[in-house]
Order: sequence, then structure tokens, then C-alpha cells
Amino acid sequence: MTPFAILESAVYAADLTAAEAFYCGLLRLPVIARVDGRHVFFRVGAGVLLVFNPDATEVASGNPDLPVPVHGARGAGHVCFAASREEIGDWRQRFMAAGVEVEAEFDWPNGARSLYVRDPGGNSVEFAEPRLWEA
Amino acid sequence: MTPFAILESAVYAADLTAAEAFYCGLLRLPVIARVDGRHVFFRVGAGVLLVFNPDATEVASGNPDLPVPVHGARGAGHVCFAASREEIGDWRQRFMAAGVEVEAEFDWPNGARSLYVRDPGGNSVEFAEPRLWEA
Repeated sequence: MTPFAILESAVYAADLTAAEAFYCGLLRLPVIARVDGRHVFFRVGAGVLLVFNPDATEVASGNPDLPVPVHGARGAGHVCFAASREEIGDWRQRFMAAGVEVEAEFDWPNGARSLYVRDPGGNSVEFAEPRLWEA
Repeated sequence: MTPFAILESAVYAADLTAAEAFYCGLLRLPVIARVDGRHVFFRVGAGVLLVFNPDATEVASGNPDLPVPVHGARGAGHVCFAASREEIGDWRQRFMAAGVEVEAEFDWPNGARSLYVRDPGGNSVEFAEPRLWEA
């Protein structure tokens, strides 16, 4: 038995309103849950992207029925979305039109392309061709 | 256009040998890349789990052909693997046999079950039924 899929990926940000403007407003990911000041969650295909405010998630759950363990990270995290090469070009255009700096864009040794921006929390957000990781 | 899948999820850990013992040795995820002291990457179905040492990834790339942006987080991150209810029971058994404490296990209000452990880096690692996030 080994995990067959990642269901949730997480990054952290103090300003969840800004995070929502980026991930929902600009990337157009649907918001599926929100608790003001604590988190905002987005659907990404079969998975979910979680954005947490670490100030809130470092505090122990007060609900004995939902004893969610504490967590919370500081500094620049990382997440990468799958995208085709054509879509990566389209993302570049969207980011440029929105005034979001493209921090890097290059081809890896195996030919797969990646593009990187920052979310408002400073996390490194990548768009990459899935063949980057094909065997 | 909106992202259709998360390709890479990341957590951070100073001790990558311990991380590999957990994610490969105990969870049995295949290692697909490793740079000693910097990172170890694991295949999870169609996605990839990245474990980075933030001391290394906070340093700018010295390769002009691969200008990977800096990143690096400290504190407890979070990742969640998909698992069926039956598998969650099997994971509990495997963790107990390995002396890994199950920090929490409960059903969410919609009936989906979650189980939580810590990886050696202190990240909160969850196993959850995908119906947790079904619409």
C-alpha cells in the first residue's frame, strides 16, 4: 500500500483576501471553503489547494469532535500547477496583463517548460509541463 | 483557463535522510530525484511530493540556465494523501507497527475520515477520503 494521489497541498499566507484575489480572481480556481482569518481553500481538478494563515492554524483546535492537529509555516512555500506549453504562454500573457512579474521561465534539461510567479504571500508558484516528471 | 491539476506539492525538512525513511521507507513512495542536502522528491500517482531543505533552497541558483526561484519555509507544513476508509485503517496499523504516533483520527461532518501523523520534519501529514471535498 502506497498513497495513490495527493488530495491536499498547502501554502501559507497572512493576507487571505490577497490570496483569494490571486488564486480565485487571477487563476480562476473555485473557492470551496473559507473561514475568515484562518483559511481559504480552492478546487484544483481532483485535488485541493489550501491556503492557511499560520497565526490561526498554530492555535490548537477548540472543537473536541474535530481535533485537527496544529500546523503553520513561515517563509516562501512552493506549489506547481500542471500546464501545457501552450497554456504556459497563455499564463505569461495573463500575468503580464495583471502586472504580476514572471520571475523565471525556462526549459528543464528534459525539455519540459516551467514558469514561476509569486503569490501575494511570497510563495513560489510554478506552472510546468507534466512531462517534467515522466519516467 | 484555470489550472487542471497540482503537479507538485512541497514540504520542508532539515533532515532529508529522515524524510526519505518516512516517505519512501514507511509510505513506500518511489524516490524520483535526490540532491544530497537540498531535496528528495517522491512520485505520488500523477503528482510529485517535493521535500526541500530550506537552508539550501533559500540560496539563489548558481546555474544561469536553470534560474529556479528561491523559496523555503520553516515550521510545520501540511500535505494530505487520498486514501479509502479501509486504507486509513491499514495506515493506522502500519504507523502503530512502526512506532509512529497517530496524532488524530476522526470523521468530518460530511462523514469523510481523516488520520494524521507527523513526518520527521514535523509536518502534519494527513490521509483522507477524497469525498471530504466532493461537491
